[in-house]
Amino acid sequence: MALKDLKVMQRNEAGIATVLGIFKQRFGERFQTGQSIREQHGHTTTYLPNQLPDGVAFVETTEEVQEIVRACAEHRVPVIAFGTGTSLEGHVNAPAGGISIDTSRMDKVLSVNAEDLDCTVQAGVTREALNTHLRDTGLFFPIDPGANASLGGMTSTRASGTNAVRYGTMRENVLSLKAVMADGEIVTTASRARKSSSGYDLTRLLVGSEGTLGVITEITLRLQGIPQAISGGVCPFPSVEAACNAVIMTIQMGIPVARIELVNALQMKAMKIYSNLDYPESPCLFVEFHGSEAGVAEQAESFGEIASEFGGGPFLWTTVAEERAKLWKARHEAYWASQSLRPGARALSTDACVPISRLAECIGETEADIAQAGLVAPIVGHVGDGNFHVLVLMDPNDPTEIAKAEAFVTRLAERAIAMDGTCTGEHGIGQGKVAFMEREHGHGVALMRTIKQALDPLDIMNPGKMLPL
Amino acid sequence: MALKDLKVMQRNEAGIATVLGIFKQRFGERFQTGQSIREQHGHTTTYLPNQLPDGVAFVETTEEVQEIVRACAEHRVPVIAFGTGTSLEGHVNAPAGGISIDTSRMDKVLSVNAEDLDCTVQAGVTREALNTHLRDTGLFFPIDPGANASLGGMTSTRASGTNAVRYGTMRENVLSLKAVMADGEIVTTASRARKSSSGYDLTRLLVGSEGTLGVITEITLRLQGIPQAISGGVCPFPSVEAACNAVIMTIQMGIPVARIELVNALQMKAMKIYSNLDYPESPCLFVEFHGSEAGVAEQAESFGEIASEFGGGPFLWTTVAEERAKLWKARHEAYWASQSLRPGARALSTDACVPISRLAECIGETEADIAQAGLVAPIVGHVGDGNFHVLVLMDPNDPTEIAKAEAFVTRLAERAIAMDGTCTGEHGIGQGKVAFMEREHGHGVALMRTIKQALDPLDIMNPGKMLPL
Repeated sequence: MALKDLKVMQRNEAGIATVLGIFKQRFGERFQTGQSIREQHGHTTTYLPNQLPDGVAFVETTEEVQEIVRACAEHRVPVIAFGTGTSLEGHVNAPAGGISIDTSRMDKVLSVNAEDLDCTVQAGVTREALNTHLRDTGLFFPIDPGANASLGGMTSTRASGTNAVRYGTMRENVLSLKAVMADGEIVTTASRARKSSSGYDLTRLLVGSEGTLGVITEITLRLQGIPQAISGGVCPFPSVEAACNAVIMTIQMGIPVARIELVNALQMKAMKIYSNLDYPESPCLFVEFHGSEAGVAEQAESFGEIASEFGGGPFLWTTVAEERAKLWKARHEAYWASQSLRPGARALSTDACVPISRLAECIGETEADIAQAGLVAPIVGHVGDGNFHVLVLMDPNDPTEIAKAEAFVTRLAERAIAMDGTCTGEHGIGQGKVAFMEREHGHGVALMRTIKQALDPLDIMNPGKMLPL
Repeated sequence: MALKDLKVMQRNEAGIATVLGIFKQRFGERFQTGQSIREQHGHTTTYLPNQLPDGVAFVETTEEVQEIVRACAEHRVPVIAFGTGTSLEGHVNAPAGGISIDTSRMDKVLSVNAEDLDCTVQAGVTREALNTHLRDTGLFFPIDPGANASLGGMTSTRASGTNAVRYGTMRENVLSLKAVMADGEIVTTASRARKSSSGYDLTRLLVGSEGTLGVITEITLRLQGIPQAISGGVCPFPSVEAACNAVIMTIQMGIPVARIELVNALQMKAMKIYSNLDYPESPCLFVEFHGSEAGVAEQAESFGEIASEFGGGPFLWTTVAEERAKLWKARHEAYWASQSLRPGARALSTDACVPISRLAECIGETEADIAQAGLVAPIVGHVGDGNFHVLVLMDPNDPTEIAKAEAFVTRLAERAIAMDGTCTGEHGIGQGKVAFMEREHGHGVALMRTIKQALDPLDIMNPGKMLPL
């Protein structure tokens, strides 16, 4: 369990004191050591205890990151990269203290290559800022984890979201990146070519590495053409199983669905109250199709037929932007809506991902588990990928409730792993899920540790995260 | 240049003698040391000198691979994985001798999970055998590098081919794999979940690693539903540049083209002779669309309009399977057709990949280079990815011709890298392109070497490949 296992690591006080002096002199006002700034750069959106960094550097260039990493390597001080602080698993906590590298001022879109459908951004650019920048180009960046996260943070956690079923995750959408590695050297992991068979895939090694191998400073991303037309709607189903079967059939038929999101009955109830949606309190699929006018109509019709085969429907769909926007606003507000089910509570948001054939079973067992444990915990999911979230509503100040929620998270992770799935589809490991790594990866953990030790022998890059000690 | 730089590495004669004795006793008839078998497991389809392994083990299980790796590790003998021998860059040569692990008897499809659109195969299953196995399921495995390669080999070289523009490469289509690592342990790199944020991406680290980190024994692959309808055809263009611009526009418009292949004028001439195709001897695009009946008609019409905007056409397309089959047969015979341009010659097949915006320029400069060098070298390309092949026709017994061809390959690789591309889009590094690694990856090569040394400290896994010594 995460809370009780949270590592308190040894601090190198002398080294920390030395680099604080160096960075104050070097960065002036851009290096902060005040209590509240440091608190903001700790646990962020988790219930995990806050483990403060000793200083926060607001960097502007890759070279500044390099200076910091080099000084920290020399004095053996931890370096923790920070984007917008929307991480859910304690990725930015500083269990051994150290320097938080805040990339929010690295907010420049460096280039947009419209012909190549790619762009290069600094790590602190958020996904919304990028899409605003792109708005006159006819292109967009599809990955949408809900939060307005930084692209550096999204790269570091291998983020995805509602439309990964169509466009992939950060794994598929990062063409190349620039990082300052633990040895203080700057590496560009790949060219802008769409594909390559040249050497180890350093890009994919860093995507999802959670700052434990290097600090990502620039990212080259794939872009997509804005679809000519979009259709979408909501379809109720008699059961989660029926909804999952409709999803499986939709994907098997090759219908290129852009989003297909499950909302369970309890979450529909919450959204009905919070977002004023007029749908039955039964499991629903929120779906969206991207393509030509004729294509999206055909896809929506085909989906409606599949849904009715599994007892779902009516499937009311539209191509009108305002109506779709209302639906997706409601879907994106799921986190806040869920909290209306238990006023005063906070949601512990966890995720798991299984092969889609096991999804109905996994969600079914999870709903039974929730009932048996007496939790209030609605479920939403990117079901096209087999990925779902449980929002456990708990009193964040009650250790008993936290322990109950953690026990549930453990059972969920073990259930997903036992079904040939993963303990996290998109949130990452951070501190919160370190305990599941051995069970999920077996000998893979030893290989990961070997790689980590080889590339970061001093263990200065985000220590205490991802890999069990 | 590849030939003159070809490494002859020190042989561990004592260790080799020891493992030969062990494996003869252990595997009997399934361990061969005859000259001709060993020759067949050397340079294969390259002009590079043949560097024979000392023995060839025809393995049947992962555990047998493990036995071999453990014995070879104990006695410090190289291990070289072998699939079907269709590698183009000397990947299976044995510059320090050692044991070739022939996976051709690991030919079982272990499972097909139709609901999950995935399957698990042993490494020796070929892509054609897999598709034959799948034929009644409504599913297919799309990656098609031309040759009927083994899926283990395709994974090891990060292979792709004609329809990567729609379905991705092995990078995107391997969900997980099992490998025997240099430490003799068996690792499964991931679960069958479609996505995961759990730990380093060991799958992608091994995809494209060319047997230098471990021997891949099983692969879990994504499958696709067989499209309801397919349309396709050939469209001539006045120039390579016009054809490339049509490709860029097609992709920018979001038309989900499944294949879009450039054949230059010289190659069209060869195909006209060899495959009896009735098209003008000008640059042509071979295109194919997958989708619904209405969808593929709409896509073909849209493409035709784009082509005519750039002076191309007429674009004659069809949904009739026999007519399409003739076109793609011709495209797949390009390698053999090219040789009809210079009877008695052999084709040195090389590839490069650049951002698509630079493709017309890169091919244009390459055509000029070919003319200036006095080479006969037609060009075909997976232009939707910016990837193209040059087939240099040469006398494989004439060192002057080989040197001229190698000088050309060097200029091509440097040209592609200078255009923010890669020296190989899909063939891999092997021995043939080691010389370009530093130029392409800079500090990345040092990181790759660190990873290699950490995971294979004895350097027994396919030594002398990919990384410059």
